[in-house]
Amino acid sequence: MNWTNFDKLNVYEALDSLTPADVKEAMAGESGAERVRSYQIPMGAGQTYCFAAKNVDDAILDVLQDLADEAELIDKYAALYNGEMINTGEKRLVLHQLCRGQLGKDVLYEGVNKREFYVSQQKRAAEFADKVHAGELVNEAGEPFTTAVQIGIGGSDLGPRALYIALENWAKVNGTLKMEAKFISNVDPDDASAVLAGVDVAHSLFVLVSKSGTTLETLTNESFVKDALSKAGLDPSKHMLAVTSETSPLANNPEYLDSFYMDDAIGGRYSSSSMVGGVILSLAFGPDVFARILAGAAEEDELSKNKDIRKNAALMDALIGVYERNFLGYNNTAVLPYSQALARFPAHLQQLDMESNGKSVNRFGEPVDYATGPVIFGEPGTNGQHSFYQLLHQGTDIVPLQFIGYKNNQMENDVVIQDSTSQQKLNANVAAQIMAFACGKDDDNRNKYFAGGRPSSIIVGNKLTPESLGALLAHFENKVMFQGFVWNLNSFDQEGVQLGKLLAKKVLAGDTDGALTEYSKLLGIF
Amino acid sequence: MNWTNFDKLNVYEALDSLTPADVKEAMAGESGAERVRSYQIPMGAGQTYCFAAKNVDDAILDVLQDLADEAELIDKYAALYNGEMINTGEKRLVLHQLCRGQLGKDVLYEGVNKREFYVSQQKRAAEFADKVHAGELVNEAGEPFTTAVQIGIGGSDLGPRALYIALENWAKVNGTLKMEAKFISNVDPDDASAVLAGVDVAHSLFVLVSKSGTTLETLTNESFVKDALSKAGLDPSKHMLAVTSETSPLANNPEYLDSFYMDDAIGGRYSSSSMVGGVILSLAFGPDVFARILAGAAEEDELSKNKDIRKNAALMDALIGVYERNFLGYNNTAVLPYSQALARFPAHLQQLDMESNGKSVNRFGEPVDYATGPVIFGEPGTNGQHSFYQLLHQGTDIVPLQFIGYKNNQMENDVVIQDSTSQQKLNANVAAQIMAFACGKDDDNRNKYFAGGRPSSIIVGNKLTPESLGALLAHFENKVMFQGFVWNLNSFDQEGVQLGKLLAKKVLAGDTDGALTEYSKLLGIF
Repeated sequence: MNWTNFDKLNVYEALDSLTPADVKEAMAGESGAERVRSYQIPMGAGQTYCFAAKNVDDAILDVLQDLADEAELIDKYAALYNGEMINTGEKRLVLHQLCRGQLGKDVLYEGVNKREFYVSQQKRAAEFADKVHAGELVNEAGEPFTTAVQIGIGGSDLGPRALYIALENWAKVNGTLKMEAKFISNVDPDDASAVLAGVDVAHSLFVLVSKSGTTLETLTNESFVKDALSKAGLDPSKHMLAVTSETSPLANNPEYLDSFYMDDAIGGRYSSSSMVGGVILSLAFGPDVFARILAGAAEEDELSKNKDIRKNAALMDALIGVYERNFLGYNNTAVLPYSQALARFPAHLQQLDMESNGKSVNRFGEPVDYATGPVIFGEPGTNGQHSFYQLLHQGTDIVPLQFIGYKNNQMENDVVIQDSTSQQKLNANVAAQIMAFACGKDDDNRNKYFAGGRPSSIIVGNKLTPESLGALLAHFENKVMFQGFVWNLNSFDQEGVQLGKLLAKKVLAGDTDGALTEYSKLLGIF
Repeated sequence: MNWTNFDKLNVYEALDSLTPADVKEAMAGESGAERVRSYQIPMGAGQTYCFAAKNVDDAILDVLQDLADEAELIDKYAALYNGEMINTGEKRLVLHQLCRGQLGKDVLYEGVNKREFYVSQQKRAAEFADKVHAGELVNEAGEPFTTAVQIGIGGSDLGPRALYIALENWAKVNGTLKMEAKFISNVDPDDASAVLAGVDVAHSLFVLVSKSGTTLETLTNESFVKDALSKAGLDPSKHMLAVTSETSPLANNPEYLDSFYMDDAIGGRYSSSSMVGGVILSLAFGPDVFARILAGAAEEDELSKNKDIRKNAALMDALIGVYERNFLGYNNTAVLPYSQALARFPAHLQQLDMESNGKSVNRFGEPVDYATGPVIFGEPGTNGQHSFYQLLHQGTDIVPLQFIGYKNNQMENDVVIQDSTSQQKLNANVAAQIMAFACGKDDDNRNKYFAGGRPSSIIVGNKLTPESLGALLAHFENKVMFQGFVWNLNSFDQEGVQLGKLLAKKVLAGDTDGALTEYSKLLGIF
């Protein structure tokens, strides 16, 4: 496999000498209409990725295809799903896609068929959830559980929480909201206190999620919850589940009703389709809905195997992002879902992308000479329009934009005002914004002048359902993976989070000096 | 007044020729400890701004003082609060500080003493809230109102929502949570549907907030709510209030129980301390708590008058930010509150900062040749540590960091695990992160190597209370104002949001062509 730094690839010079397409010019008139019609790629669950308003044209796409080919991006993806040790730093396989489907050959590791292992866990979680929903598994008083509370942080929180919020209202309308879900993540004691004050602990199941079983925040919050249960006269072991690795202290432990397993081949930020998301989502929505999320993701994973960038949305998205980052000098990406249900999806993507590719060394630990992962941020539209879009339209930096939209809303309620529904207004705004960013507007009053040339792409679906959500999740996971391959990074470790943890332990042990002592005093720690 | 472009000031060359302080070196050993002790500035409500870990030293601070003096930043602030027409583009005064205190001379405008006007509205809102809380103002069935729902978007949503979330748990513990507050903002019909499904409409008051009375999203959501009230057999006019300007169609309208007023001198993103925040927060927490927020802000506003940058936290914060943006080339700022209660405060600052200073023309409408407002993003710690901090520590770009922390948590519950409370763990992480970012760590394994030199500042308070929250709000408002003065921008208009609105109307009217037609089809609008 060709694990070469990006700037050492033959195609790098060709990329560097390209003239970017002029978005403002390209998107005007009939040529713009033709771009929208032709610059579309089908995604999983009937969604479409449209990149018409990006700084690319057919000549550039040809060079990006060369990049994909020379960097062997699809071969690397195949190596990953076929079980090669892609996470070299931590000496781990990378198998989150295998939670949702068999993309290649059987992956046998330490005597275990990994697909069978993941599927067996899904079945166990499904059976457990079914028992809870059927009232077969009840609390000490023989009463049903009504609420599921996830205790986890980072990947054990952001992805599952974003998915839960994305489908909560859909599930209410479709009669599949089996239990309400809540989330405790922060070590700030007020987080756990507030969540606990808002639930009926006697009828709550707590899902403790930590792969290692040693995450400081999560164990601290576990104690918080156990305290609350004990104070309410309840037996914590009748209210708590663990999601962890089989080798962790939480596994097979009588303190929990049951334990469900992921393994080292599932990175935190890629773990939503493992038991990390599976237990809480199966409890909340029923196992069938979780299976539908996985099916949507599996469909997208299959589409991501295509070597033709014009038929592979995740790959195209990745390559355009690299072009923007390394040759157009854009430092950020804004994720702008026109769907309130995706309110926390940008926060998940922020972790997924920035923790995977926010790195300065290649997969061999050698410094790289090019920019890697961008800063990701975003809020749902139309809210963002009334907030930070001012800078996006008229600021001095150009920020590439990732829109997401759906033809239909999730709940059945809508209202016609001035001859249009809210959903039509919502989508009219997406279309309008894309064009406003792309083409701008001349005005003699420079304060009302819009330069345009601000690139965007959009993912459009029929409706945000379990399948389309799963495909959306996989799209971005695969995009980030492909970009990591181009930049020759290990996108699956996160050494950058270690130093802070180490120093925090020193502070708590009173082992500080210099400025660390002064900051500790300032913060009233001692 | 010296309204000169930043790069035309005499001090610009001096700034450009400065050698930035080496954060890694400066923060090591005893010199670092001394910097933490001395690079502190008192803020309102007993808080402290510490900028020890920034790329500055005394020589640089002297030049930043020269910048403050030459750009007449404090004189411009005085002109603003004394009622000069600072928002020249829209020909408006800028008087949000006057909602919380009289900083200078009486502001008389069109025959009205503006301070008296704002105070009279506060009294009216207080009386109204008192009546609701006392059960004197009740629903049609004679039952008390228990929930207040704000309908607004942008500045009518983000600031008030961030403040409500910041004090909700504090109020619960202190017995001042009079009513639960909810917020409807997005034109996505699922936003209103979901909020309405979660409240008891018969016992809810709806606060419609729109200065002009013409905001599309807000009027649409009003209809949504009126529909729901009517369907529940309730009279909308007995459940709705308006917050608007006296000249809007919502003012003095029998469709509302009452109307409360702001005016054109209150910009949306600066409106939390006007009736935009005042009505909902007085209903939720009682008028006394809202008055305490204003008192904290007023204290900070007074401190912001100091011409000595070493004694003016908002001014120092602003100047360091300009230095980072224009001379160190940093494009973003991450806001990292170590307080779950401030979960949505970064979203408010994102609007405040990016909508105010994300501009390419000066206050006279002439293009500027320097970078202006940065991209702002953030999430609470420690959550962010398990998410995007990887990029902040080891990414290829440097992102300046704004930490916020409190010695004590808001709720009374905490737990000791391994000899420390959750609050101590939380704060140990802040201290540790600052030092990890500043000084990094050498390691032969480059994957575990931290370059350091990543600058941060921190605001520390005793506890997040109404007063400290008010001071925090005012700090950032004033920081953004000072930066706008340096960049010679009009920080109080937002022409960049207009074009999208205009095009959205065209789409809804079917008046499209070219790519706009194709996007409209793709999104299923017609």
